[in-house]
Amino acid sequence: MIDSKRILVTTHPFGEKDPRPLEILSKHGINYSLNPYGRKLTEDDLIKLVRDYDVLIAGTEKISRKVLDSAKNLKLISRVGIGLDGIDLIEAKKRNIKVSYTPDAPSPAAAELTISLFLNLLRSVHISNNMMHNGIWYRHFGKRIENLTIGIIGFGRIGTRVVKILQGFGCKKILINDLPEKKDCIKRKGFIFRSKDEIMRQSDIVSLHLPLNKFTNNMITYEKLCMMKPDSYIVNISRGGIINEEDLFKILKEQKISGAAVDTFVEEPYNGPLTRLDNCILTSHMGSMSIDCRAQMEIEATKEAVLFITQNKTLRDVPQEEYEVQTGIKE
Amino acid sequence: MIDSKRILVTTHPFGEKDPRPLEILSKHGINYSLNPYGRKLTEDDLIKLVRDYDVLIAGTEKISRKVLDSAKNLKLISRVGIGLDGIDLIEAKKRNIKVSYTPDAPSPAAAELTISLFLNLLRSVHISNNMMHNGIWYRHFGKRIENLTIGIIGFGRIGTRVVKILQGFGCKKILINDLPEKKDCIKRKGFIFRSKDEIMRQSDIVSLHLPLNKFTNNMITYEKLCMMKPDSYIVNISRGGIINEEDLFKILKEQKISGAAVDTFVEEPYNGPLTRLDNCILTSHMGSMSIDCRAQMEIEATKEAVLFITQNKTLRDVPQEEYEVQTGIKE
Repeated sequence: MIDSKRILVTTHPFGEKDPRPLEILSKHGINYSLNPYGRKLTEDDLIKLVRDYDVLIAGTEKISRKVLDSAKNLKLISRVGIGLDGIDLIEAKKRNIKVSYTPDAPSPAAAELTISLFLNLLRSVHISNNMMHNGIWYRHFGKRIENLTIGIIGFGRIGTRVVKILQGFGCKKILINDLPEKKDCIKRKGFIFRSKDEIMRQSDIVSLHLPLNKFTNNMITYEKLCMMKPDSYIVNISRGGIINEEDLFKILKEQKISGAAVDTFVEEPYNGPLTRLDNCILTSHMGSMSIDCRAQMEIEATKEAVLFITQNKTLRDVPQEEYEVQTGIKE
Repeated sequence: MIDSKRILVTTHPFGEKDPRPLEILSKHGINYSLNPYGRKLTEDDLIKLVRDYDVLIAGTEKISRKVLDSAKNLKLISRVGIGLDGIDLIEAKKRNIKVSYTPDAPSPAAAELTISLFLNLLRSVHISNNMMHNGIWYRHFGKRIENLTIGIIGFGRIGTRVVKILQGFGCKKILINDLPEKKDCIKRKGFIFRSKDEIMRQSDIVSLHLPLNKFTNNMITYEKLCMMKPDSYIVNISRGGIINEEDLFKILKEQKISGAAVDTFVEEPYNGPLTRLDNCILTSHMGSMSIDCRAQMEIEATKEAVLFITQNKTLRDVPQEEYEVQTGIKE
């Protein structure tokens, strides 16, 4: 009976640094297949691979209407991580396919990566390290987090953690934006609530901690970037598409702001024009990539898949509002 | 009268990002010369330059017996920064040359650079950034500060600040070493005091925050590095020579530890064998190089020089214990 329910693990890596997710699957005698390509799957890959599987343990790959059309047996997408922008939730619902996720697990790793990007932008460690390895000694001037105005757009699981770490640095001016209905609560907690435009204008670093959905897609355009101070930075570890990538390239190329750090891209793997800019730090969607957080995400998503297969239950269904804000999935 | 007292500013940069130190000198009508080479001066440079000056506003360049022999008029060395390992304090005292310094000003910048180096070691931002700029997408696994055991050797101005920031990360296990007489005080404050060897054995990251003197010179040898865990890191932003550079090269080359980050070197500018190692992050003595801290250091050292010239007073004399622990200056 259990044998007939099969799991395709599309996310990669999986069980690499911590074998527990694989052990959970084996312990329950569940048939599963791993991503055979060892990279992020394309839509075409998925259409071919997905046909007979009952459950996907999924990463950020695009699970579009076409993929779902091909997935005749699919009953659950158990997402390793939090972002749902890759999954056509509406089409999944029409087909009675459940979607669950692991919203909490990646946050601690994402917050620490954010601070790491801030510090590299401010202290030029990545630049000095390259220069030193090429025999060039140059003492770069930098700035200190403690003195800066930091603007946090998105005060959810990750944004709140970033703020907590910034407070440890003694950072005195943290400006926060989130949905209007959260304004009073944020102010009650003693934080400074500002509009997005005010944050763009006043911050030395703007950091985005938002989901990608129809409200946030293309939120930061050239016009918004032009509001920023000439010696300021912008950091996006949340999702590609929230900052318009062409607009970011343009403003950085024109050196109208000091720099940016970007971990997430519209198309991944990314190999676009931002790679030609020295004033843009780039990392490979590594927000969640600490060994502990990645293991936690994989274990939670695996347990969810097992629970569904063995008891037809789920614990971490994607909430209704995620369906309502879903951006149109590009075909 | 004032014209006869002349200042040589040997440190570089000086007044570059913040002109206030230069303005202070001009306001008091004091004759001064800046480092004519725009780089760290050698002993020979200094021997030639120093002859007629009454006061040095000095950086980390070596002020040896030979330099002091040449400095017939010298009455004050006003050090921009804290480390005194470059100055032969005993020989200065014999010649009745006062030495003052700015011990507090660089600490905040040094602490933030330390955390920046920790995070790069842990999350491979510098590596991913280079790979991305070369068109290579690879998701590096990392570790989180919150989960690690961090060993702090030296709990002075900088070490205490590093610990405060680590607490903001939620870091639960911070091991501290300092002089035995500080043990009880450190424990009373709720911190975990450990011997240097215990710190070497138990820490995921060992970070050094010590002055270079006869007790700390060559403190971390190959034998000590071999005590470290195979997946651990060592960070030195304090002074070159505290870790034996050849021994560090050897252990990193043998990959017996995961990596290191080094900001300070025995000879600066540094262009030695560590530049050939990928598992060693190198920066160019940038601990104090935030605009605000550098300005504060330069202003304090300049005010001290002016106070001495105009009123024959000093406020920040190097304390007696610095003379007692001075390491032998290499001739």
